[in-house]
Amino acid sequence: MNQIELKKQVGERAAQYVEDGMIVGLGTGSTAEFFVAALGERVKNEGLNIVGVPTSDRTRNQATALGIKIKNIDDVDYIDLTVDGADEVDENFQGIKGGGAAHLWEKIVSSNSKRNIWIVDNSKMVKTLGAFPLPIEVIPFGSKHVVDKLIAAGYKPKIRRDENGNPKLTHFHNYIIDLQVDSIPDPKQLGTELINMVGVVEHGLFLDHVNTLIIGRPEGPQVIDNIR
Amino acid sequence: MNQIELKKQVGERAAQYVEDGMIVGLGTGSTAEFFVAALGERVKNEGLNIVGVPTSDRTRNQATALGIKIKNIDDVDYIDLTVDGADEVDENFQGIKGGGAAHLWEKIVSSNSKRNIWIVDNSKMVKTLGAFPLPIEVIPFGSKHVVDKLIAAGYKPKIRRDENGNPKLTHFHNYIIDLQVDSIPDPKQLGTELINMVGVVEHGLFLDHVNTLIIGRPEGPQVIDNIR
Repeated sequence: MNQIELKKQVGERAAQYVEDGMIVGLGTGSTAEFFVAALGERVKNEGLNIVGVPTSDRTRNQATALGIKIKNIDDVDYIDLTVDGADEVDENFQGIKGGGAAHLWEKIVSSNSKRNIWIVDNSKMVKTLGAFPLPIEVIPFGSKHVVDKLIAAGYKPKIRRDENGNPKLTHFHNYIIDLQVDSIPDPKQLGTELINMVGVVEHGLFLDHVNTLIIGRPEGPQVIDNIR
Repeated sequence: MNQIELKKQVGERAAQYVEDGMIVGLGTGSTAEFFVAALGERVKNEGLNIVGVPTSDRTRNQATALGIKIKNIDDVDYIDLTVDGADEVDENFQGIKGGGAAHLWEKIVSSNSKRNIWIVDNSKMVKTLGAFPLPIEVIPFGSKHVVDKLIAAGYKPKIRRDENGNPKLTHFHNYIIDLQVDSIPDPKQLGTELINMVGVVEHGLFLDHVNTLIIGRPEGPQVIDNIR
């Protein structure tokens, strides 16, 4: 099985967790896309009555095209369940998200969700986080100084750029700094350090966030509940 | 002496701290205005060669009209000295800023400044912070849930609105929540609680920030260095 088949496997498996009447957070990315597609199938075939809360314009467009009813985060009082992918997940269920520049939107949705399921192919599982560059959303104004301070702290920050070499803007008109840390032995300590830097809006560390992890494996999906 | 005269007194006193060749952060508000005016006088009369880094469009316009050379925060490597007002200051030099909705810009400038001087009239000095509503800058998207969580935590949050009843937008296109807390016995604990809420960009608590406090008093300005 290749990575695409593994992503499809976990996306379809996660769609089974959605129940009639739920308000469902819809993640963003190549794995979450398979979840949204499978959910659209259930809505069509089973007449499942749900409301989707998207985490990006891309996901909103996909869900709408599939006939999933959509509401914005500020138009619901809570979310029952959010299903999303991740860029890296360690043995303690801590993860990095934001390769697709949607991590602030995703974090706003998932932090207002009663339950979070992450779906990943097995290549995303790591012993220690950090090989994947950590995305940090920053206010453009003063961002030069955030970069300077991250360098002084020993990290390798890089402002993400578009094809024309200009800083890439997020949905909220901020910049993304991709922080090469190599190894993050203590994600909470790094998260605290980053969130306290003036100008940092949100980092891509999702800590104590996931309730259930579904890992795509050639022998079939592995479901692990985070019972801690 | 009325409050306006006290503000003028401390603004003029703070201008004496500026030295030739300095890069100077220029605060925002009715007290900082007197500082900028006095600094403009020194530039004109003494030929002081300085660069000002403004903390709002209003301050930039005032400084430019006075002939003060201006640079943006991302065009300087550091700031020597920032002079700004405050809405409330306690006995431990901790303060609240943001009544004028400029606190994120002000914090970005002051946190990159080698030295910070605050200038306040004596009415701003309090034993314990909190009578002044604490301004919090939040991402508009999902702000309903930040308000809900603040209410659940026992605070009284209110989204700041313009004359038409629409949420007031900051320079960075965010909302301001004014948080009535009444009493803040432990500013650091509250700051940590707020900055860790997803969707909060920055709060108006300026902690361990000020190096020198100049208080306007009828008998003359009181200068206190924070030597801790």
